[in-house]
Amino acid sequence: MERQLLFIIRYRGTRYHGFQVQRAGVLTIAQVMQDAIEAVFKQRLNIKGCSRTDTGVHANRFALTLRTQSSIPCDAAVRALNIKLPPDVAVLECHQVPDTFHPRYDCTGKRYLYRIWNSTIPNPFLTDLTLQHPYPLDLARMNAAAKQFLGSHDFSAFCSAGSKVKDRVRCITDASVSTDGALCTFSVTGSGFLYNMVRIMMGTLLEVSRGAIQPEQLPAILASKNRACAGPTAPARGLYLDEVFYPQELLAEKQP
Amino acid sequence: MERQLLFIIRYRGTRYHGFQVQRAGVLTIAQVMQDAIEAVFKQRLNIKGCSRTDTGVHANRFALTLRTQSSIPCDAAVRALNIKLPPDVAVLECHQVPDTFHPRYDCTGKRYLYRIWNSTIPNPFLTDLTLQHPYPLDLARMNAAAKQFLGSHDFSAFCSAGSKVKDRVRCITDASVSTDGALCTFSVTGSGFLYNMVRIMMGTLLEVSRGAIQPEQLPAILASKNRACAGPTAPARGLYLDEVFYPQELLAEKQP
Repeated sequence: MERQLLFIIRYRGTRYHGFQVQRAGVLTIAQVMQDAIEAVFKQRLNIKGCSRTDTGVHANRFALTLRTQSSIPCDAAVRALNIKLPPDVAVLECHQVPDTFHPRYDCTGKRYLYRIWNSTIPNPFLTDLTLQHPYPLDLARMNAAAKQFLGSHDFSAFCSAGSKVKDRVRCITDASVSTDGALCTFSVTGSGFLYNMVRIMMGTLLEVSRGAIQPEQLPAILASKNRACAGPTAPARGLYLDEVFYPQELLAEKQP
Repeated sequence: MERQLLFIIRYRGTRYHGFQVQRAGVLTIAQVMQDAIEAVFKQRLNIKGCSRTDTGVHANRFALTLRTQSSIPCDAAVRALNIKLPPDVAVLECHQVPDTFHPRYDCTGKRYLYRIWNSTIPNPFLTDLTLQHPYPLDLARMNAAAKQFLGSHDFSAFCSAGSKVKDRVRCITDASVSTDGALCTFSVTGSGFLYNMVRIMMGTLLEVSRGAIQPEQLPAILASKNRACAGPTAPARGLYLDEVFYPQELLAEKQP
């Protein structure tokens, strides 16, 4: 009997050209997952991811699915895959899901984190895992600006110029900046995100912090729908896909 | 006028064969520090470290000194060195210290941490920074055993067999195991440490956790002075030199 399995994985994106196989000779998360799956399921299986991620971007929780005739129990699949995977990719969970489940189309929202090491002194343990920012951050200004992202807006100004997506309205339900010592985290949750949207939001919030953009200007920047009005794109290495949301009932199927 | 400068550095030890230059063709922390110092001070200067560290061991705070005729202010030296250093080594502080100061002989104590990722699921962000231990840890047993390290003991049973050190009495002032989610940390502070002492302590505490050694056996293991009676040497990748202690008055000299 064919089953559809949903895997939640975590990865350090530094070595990878994002999730999706793009062209030959380029290492991707999808590729190492497919190799590990082939070793465990004894068959080359197609996988579907919940989204693309860019080169160097990390994931605390990323969802992908496959269809298999194998009767391997979910917990055994997790253990076996973690043995086959390289140390910078780990499978956290496996769930049997309905045949109709799609990791991208059934996703109701996502949360991203962007992490900044806010110090003049580099942190050797967070290289490639944060953006080092040596100047003081004005959290009050950044949060005042982040609040302006809340609600439904056309985020064209926060989308890389090359994107071909037509509908650029997205709904942001949470956006805030917090600190824990020198570690500063921008957390943003929404129905969906455009290409480079979180990295441009972050680059804009850094412009707000240093005073080059005022928090009150955010509505006008959104209204401009002009990429050139927002701040620069922050580097990939600070970005984490932190959570992917699905309707609870789709994940509730009894485990084998 | 010649000054002696004390530098506190932090490093991720994964790429390095420890601190001290041992032989040609092998990358060490001392080497990259000397290269950066040469670039900043325009002169090849000898440096003295507070201790050796093994291949793959990390340091949150490691002390080293150099003598220089340069009048560069301490804060400028920190900034300049961090520009020249690779991203896995950082200078945290620079202090002018008395001519007689010696980073090894004036050290009154050290604190080491050993970090364990206690989960069946690997953590892609902590590879090379923790030991992954998939079995449940018995913290009460581990702490009962760690307590037995306190005080002055001959730690011959916790010293690698190859060591030529004669006096193996060391005084441990603090030793405890704590957890924060899946992250388990053994912290141990003492007057000094023998070769591989913390890693053998950790290996022994893991034997205690699984029940192969009883906490009450620790005094007998110490008394045996026999390396074979203690547990195995835990891998280097979980070990951090966390702090190096000096008499306050030696660091109090006015900064230029």
